[in-house]
Amino acid sequence: MPQPEAVRVPQGADLAGEFRRTRRLTAALADPLSDADATIQSMEDASPAKWHLAHTTWFWETFLLRDHCADYRLYREDWPFLFNSYYEAEGARIGRFSRGMLSRPTVAEICQWRDHVDAAMAPLLDDPDCAGMIALGIAHEQQHQELLLTDIKHALFQNPLGPAMWDRAARAGEGQGEAADGWHSHPGGIALIGHDGEGFAFDNEGPRHRVLLEPFALARRLVTNAEWDAFIADGGYRDARLWLSDGWAWVNEHGISAPLYWHEGRAFTHCGWQDRDPAAPVTHISYYEADAFATWAGARLPTEFEWEAIARGQHVETAPAHDPAGGNQLDHPDDWGGPPLPGGSDALFGDCWQFTRSAYLPYPRFAPCEGAVGEYNGKFMSGQFVLKGASCATVRGHSRASYRNFFYPHQRWQFTGLRLAKDI
Amino acid sequence: MPQPEAVRVPQGADLAGEFRRTRRLTAALADPLSDADATIQSMEDASPAKWHLAHTTWFWETFLLRDHCADYRLYREDWPFLFNSYYEAEGARIGRFSRGMLSRPTVAEICQWRDHVDAAMAPLLDDPDCAGMIALGIAHEQQHQELLLTDIKHALFQNPLGPAMWDRAARAGEGQGEAADGWHSHPGGIALIGHDGEGFAFDNEGPRHRVLLEPFALARRLVTNAEWDAFIADGGYRDARLWLSDGWAWVNEHGISAPLYWHEGRAFTHCGWQDRDPAAPVTHISYYEADAFATWAGARLPTEFEWEAIARGQHVETAPAHDPAGGNQLDHPDDWGGPPLPGGSDALFGDCWQFTRSAYLPYPRFAPCEGAVGEYNGKFMSGQFVLKGASCATVRGHSRASYRNFFYPHQRWQFTGLRLAKDI
Amino acid sequence: MPQPEAVRVPQGADLAGEFRRTRRLTAALADPLSDADATIQSMEDASPAKWHLAHTTWFWETFLLRDHCADYRLYREDWPFLFNSYYEAEGARIGRFSRGMLSRPTVAEICQWRDHVDAAMAPLLDDPDCAGMIALGIAHEQQHQELLLTDIKHALFQNPLGPAMWDRAARAGEGQGEAADGWHSHPGGIALIGHDGEGFAFDNEGPRHRVLLEPFALARRLVTNAEWDAFIADGGYRDARLWLSDGWAWVNEHGISAPLYWHEGRAFTHCGWQDRDPAAPVTHISYYEADAFATWAGARLPTEFEWEAIARGQHVETAPAHDPAGGNQLDHPDDWGGPPLPGGSDALFGDCWQFTRSAYLPYPRFAPCEGAVGEYNGKFMSGQFVLKGASCATVRGHSRASYRNFFYPHQRWQFTGLRLAKDI
Amino acid sequence: MPQPEAVRVPQGADLAGEFRRTRRLTAALADPLSDADATIQSMEDASPAKWHLAHTTWFWETFLLRDHCADYRLYREDWPFLFNSYYEAEGARIGRFSRGMLSRPTVAEICQWRDHVDAAMAPLLDDPDCAGMIALGIAHEQQHQELLLTDIKHALFQNPLGPAMWDRAARAGEGQGEAADGWHSHPGGIALIGHDGEGFAFDNEGPRHRVLLEPFALARRLVTNAEWDAFIADGGYRDARLWLSDGWAWVNEHGISAPLYWHEGRAFTHCGWQDRDPAAPVTHISYYEADAFATWAGARLPTEFEWEAIARGQHVETAPAHDPAGGNQLDHPDDWGGPPLPGGSDALFGDCWQFTRSAYLPYPRFAPCEGAVGEYNGKFMSGQFVLKGASCATVRGHSRASYRNFFYPHQRWQFTGLRLAKDI
Repeated sequence: MPQPEAVRVPQGADLAGEFRRTRRLTAALADPLSDADATIQSMEDASPAKWHLAHTTWFWETFLLRDHCADYRLYREDWPFLFNSYYEAEGARIGRFSRGMLSRPTVAEICQWRDHVDAAMAPLLDDPDCAGMIALGIAHEQQHQELLLTDIKHALFQNPLGPAMWDRAARAGEGQGEAADGWHSHPGGIALIGHDGEGFAFDNEGPRHRVLLEPFALARRLVTNAEWDAFIADGGYRDARLWLSDGWAWVNEHGISAPLYWHEGRAFTHCGWQDRDPAAPVTHISYYEADAFATWAGARLPTEFEWEAIARGQHVETAPAHDPAGGNQLDHPDDWGGPPLPGGSDALFGDCWQFTRSAYLPYPRFAPCEGAVGEYNGKFMSGQFVLKGASCATVRGHSRASYRNFFYPHQRWQFTGLRLAKDI
Repeated sequence: MPQPEAVRVPQGADLAGEFRRTRRLTAALADPLSDADATIQSMEDASPAKWHLAHTTWFWETFLLRDHCADYRLYREDWPFLFNSYYEAEGARIGRFSRGMLSRPTVAEICQWRDHVDAAMAPLLDDPDCAGMIALGIAHEQQHQELLLTDIKHALFQNPLGPAMWDRAARAGEGQGEAADGWHSHPGGIALIGHDGEGFAFDNEGPRHRVLLEPFALARRLVTNAEWDAFIADGGYRDARLWLSDGWAWVNEHGISAPLYWHEGRAFTHCGWQDRDPAAPVTHISYYEADAFATWAGARLPTEFEWEAIARGQHVETAPAHDPAGGNQLDHPDDWGGPPLPGGSDALFGDCWQFTRSAYLPYPRFAPCEGAVGEYNGKFMSGQFVLKGASCATVRGHSRASYRNFFYPHQRWQFTGLRLAKDI
Repeated sequence: MPQPEAVRVPQGADLAGEFRRTRRLTAALADPLSDADATIQSMEDASPAKWHLAHTTWFWETFLLRDHCADYRLYREDWPFLFNSYYEAEGARIGRFSRGMLSRPTVAEICQWRDHVDAAMAPLLDDPDCAGMIALGIAHEQQHQELLLTDIKHALFQNPLGPAMWDRAARAGEGQGEAADGWHSHPGGIALIGHDGEGFAFDNEGPRHRVLLEPFALARRLVTNAEWDAFIADGGYRDARLWLSDGWAWVNEHGISAPLYWHEGRAFTHCGWQDRDPAAPVTHISYYEADAFATWAGARLPTEFEWEAIARGQHVETAPAHDPAGGNQLDHPDDWGGPPLPGGSDALFGDCWQFTRSAYLPYPRFAPCEGAVGEYNGKFMSGQFVLKGASCATVRGHSRASYRNFFYPHQRWQFTGLRLAKDI
Repeated sequence: MPQPEAVRVPQGADLAGEFRRTRRLTAALADPLSDADATIQSMEDASPAKWHLAHTTWFWETFLLRDHCADYRLYREDWPFLFNSYYEAEGARIGRFSRGMLSRPTVAEICQWRDHVDAAMAPLLDDPDCAGMIALGIAHEQQHQELLLTDIKHALFQNPLGPAMWDRAARAGEGQGEAADGWHSHPGGIALIGHDGEGFAFDNEGPRHRVLLEPFALARRLVTNAEWDAFIADGGYRDARLWLSDGWAWVNEHGISAPLYWHEGRAFTHCGWQDRDPAAPVTHISYYEADAFATWAGARLPTEFEWEAIARGQHVETAPAHDPAGGNQLDHPDDWGGPPLPGGSDALFGDCWQFTRSAYLPYPRFAPCEGAVGEYNGKFMSGQFVLKGASCATVRGHSRASYRNFFYPHQRWQFTGLRLAKDI
């Protein structure tokens, strides 16, 4: 039984309710999409919306129903081959860039599968032996909710018509509020890093351990579109001195001159092409761009440890940031069509994932879980960088101070941004 | 006005009827497809079914309605960018391998456009000034009917589930009938090659000219699956001596060991995976494979001129082949779900396109038409080979003895086969 | 014994003398090169000079000494793996683009091998059983003499220092002389095409056969640098209408805007960078460029049959062109350092190979030789175009009216040019 | 003046002597190579030996002579374009994979340049203003001595003849001696990491800072060929569970099944193909392989901090390791032809560079130097891993406890190996 060791479910957690809310939200996110919208795949990094609907269902069917219900029979014998993502222990699967060829099964057929699996899950939701794996399954599906949104954005962007998935909300963008300037400063010293064991966490967030920090400061707000415009105007994309060597090669090979989705004064959003809000955080940038900007600004990116120490309010001179209130809804970004949600402008979370200069590597004494779910995080520990925080497309309550998101330095189809740091 | 010079429309031709039947058939072919089926693109050579529905409509809107109806306004200003194929004179267009990103417009929206254009076309259908261009548009749409079928076959083939587009017909496959063995022999001499000016033809089929032939013989039937199995069993794909140099490189680079769509004793069809009929003509082979087979068999491929001379019955010792009876329907292949159609087993037409050893080059004094439609054929005259005949996916009446189909020597997603020739 | 069927050696030919002159010339061509010059390989199409020295020697050792001297032992057992070019029947060999890794053996060691093989060949030079193969070996080595020159030119061109292999000759460039303008016209009719059996010819030049020609004219001179400058000035490289579809893609993918080796008013030559002579024939162009120029000029490329008919003086209204006088020396181009050689300005031969619009395909009843040398020509009969004539880098006496050179339409590191044709 | 801030030259260091010894050794290493050997480039990662000879000379000419001798004139105006490596501040340069096209200048010409520059350097060698840059230049040239050796090994390996650069030494390989088993254990706590300011160091080795370590142990010896054979025999290269995700993709894409240079029981060396010594350290492995082996062995790779703490003997329970004695000679590996050199079998240095699980990132408060030499290290801080120690091809005295070598996780043409670590 592949029980994630790192998973501790808090007493009294409403796992059954969380399961149902999560499943409903995934389906709701795909609701505005046609079968064709949900089928196309724009690049190898991204998956079709349909595939996310199916893969998350495969996860429940495989690691809960198949492994914990003696008499459960697979809904379709040939679907695991289609919807396993990368679990070698679960056998062969279609090539990653062939996911976009799956015009069949239809979204409707996958939704029937979802209903079937949800019904079959009912008896397990209160089984304490399954609690850890259910918590993992919920977190897994929440990650795919975000990926579904970033992937369909990239897919729709390929269409010269610039189609919208949602209508634009009436309210104006609010940026990050007025309290944003300034720095959180930290005197350095030993910080406790990693998950404390309360509530769910992925295995890669632990074990908790001590890290020695030098004095530093972390910006109270994210870098904005207006600041990025200044970087461009100052020739930032054409000055080799600002760039990492790999980054400079990337800029030149791909002719990069602006964040992804920018075109003149507009940006592509889930609501189609929209004017950019100068006060909003810049997003859809690569690590290379983030690093070059920080160099240009005379600052640097924070380490993941610095970020976490500030997020935890350890020895911080400003008001501590806090984990955002939980809840199974999305913190809709400005360019979406959903209702506005209250959000503290000073929080480190929300808006976009923030690149750190920390490579994604194992914490001391880290060991992945046994079995297939041991492939969840550990095997990706080379070549990627850690991002902290959460984005407008992250379900509220999903992230936390110890959360470690990770991407390759050239990737930028996620809602990625940056928060400056400096030595003090 | 881009009037194709080469187009002569026969007196009394029912162009209006032909237009309506053609437009209906295209829509009917796409009928079994979902919006998602019709959206996906499996490779750069192939286009989505939806795109074929739209591109053929763009052709009418551009070269007939826009150019011949003074007050016609484009249905959508931004659609020509999506649905122009390769006409440089018509301006920029999306990248060829981005056609599969068009989840919007939907098939339904494109069908509304089709209806709109069909209605607008009504006044032009009897206009003698438009007759040549209308005949071209019909032939163009018939070509795309075949491409729609070969492209969707390739797309569905990517799906490990092996989805079917049609149910399999109850009748057994008939192969090529019993009269097929033997050779048509030809004494050589001067043959008249190219279209004679009666009825419609593409510009590349003329001018008619004389070609000197040596004595030769052409097989009365196509090479069969059973014969191809013997070629494989004899190590045909592993014997460098049988292959053209480019072909041998292609075999090794792609690990080719059988025709496209073959897997063990079955083949992928529009009706899903089916047992192969040993007596049926082999199909979905490349020029390289056809040439290697012919070498293995101690024969060779015919030239396009030899094939045409036999098709015209010039000086031929067997009964002359004849152009198939016209009619706006498809000669359904064995593996389709439609009703069986009568077809002469001795005809050179039908079943599959037949590779010749003739490169696709201009005939003496060939000149492409003026204007954008001059790009229709002439600019492709390098690197490709001529195929003669017609396939199970060719609308009956579309092909003729002078017809010149052309593909690159490595391509095999069309219904391509071979008919042997030899010197006598 | 792989005896080329097509080879007929004329009575009284001085094969032994020809052998020795050819071997000496190859070595002399490599003489100005250092071991390092002779080792580098600039692209997969080209081979190191050292490799040409060795491969031609391998040819003699393999097909003459090994096959015809019972007691001959290979000079080095492991060298055939290095120096076999493409003869599958002769076994495995290093990858084509790994030829540039052979810093060992040295040029000096290869020259010792050359001497060894030359000495061992002595008894065979008068053996009538070997005459056909010796004639083939001589022709083969002459082809590699030209390749050695074109390949080293391409290699030295990669060096930003623009190194010269020879000093520039003192004499001024003479262009094509003053008698060049005008056309050879031909009334059409049946032409005899292919080698007549007198003297040596490659198998692909036969069998001799009849071809029907329409009336046409062929330019008396080649297109010049000045004319090409006019094509460029008129936007020739930016006008899609002039180009074949594959050519237009090639122009855009590679950013082509001039012939290979051109930079501003100069061109790279074996004597380094030199001013271009406006009256000299344009060279180092691709088929795509030749075809686009002809279209721009309101003319076309000739077929290989038209070219040959003019070269043979069949029914031609101007003075017949003639095969150039034989002799084992190079017709040094203007930019070389050697002594000027007399050359008729009206001849079709010399200066550069001339693209025809004929694909390289087998003549009727063509059959390659038995054995490994059967791979010499026949297996390349797809995707390439025929070039006629000869270039400044072709040994005098090597080419003839029936000679068929062939290259892919994008290749241009050979001395390729064009001669216009038109219908009359 | 681009004076490296981080460079502090010890009082009384014999920089002039060190300069001359270093320059002599570089030339001596290239001595067995022909001009052709020294010209070829086997892959983009590697450079020709000739290029190393020239690039190191360019470094002195540019950063010392040009910048510090008012009247110095460049030896050749057009050579900096050829021999600048990656310094954007120094302008354009040839493409990295075009270095192998430089048959000119010859090795002899470059050696003349070396002499010229060496002579011109004489007045600067005692100039205290230049001392820091001279120390950097010496360290730079020592790095290229190692690269010259690893690059020429890779180049000669491409040759199927397996050429040797040196004769094999008569003495038998000694492996790592008998005292090698066992572990160095460390109780954890705060370690001082980074260069202490005594003697030369690269900028990336500082600033010195504190790092918190958990208790751990580090193997006293490197993993051996015999142990690697056991890994292979146990299916290590075929078991996805052992591999990082990127590593597994790399193994499958490239068909990796053994270290680079292994073939059956032998390995390619500078002395040609030699039997492998089972007791010798395994080398020429990638990070992916090192990580997979460690997982298979139930251990892990050390961090760079753990390695350095052991190397410094901080709190270590075994005898402390020590920096190897300086001296300007190479610690010839077993497979070389030079004289054996005494070397402590227990030292962490020598034999091969050891992968750590630490990504190559800046230390706290790291800032690169001003000017072009600021590009030396800092701009490579993404995507690579730190290696510690030194290899058989590292000049003795070049490395030190704080030394940070870095390579991408797939690279293995360096002398790379591994030393296991474990938690205690």
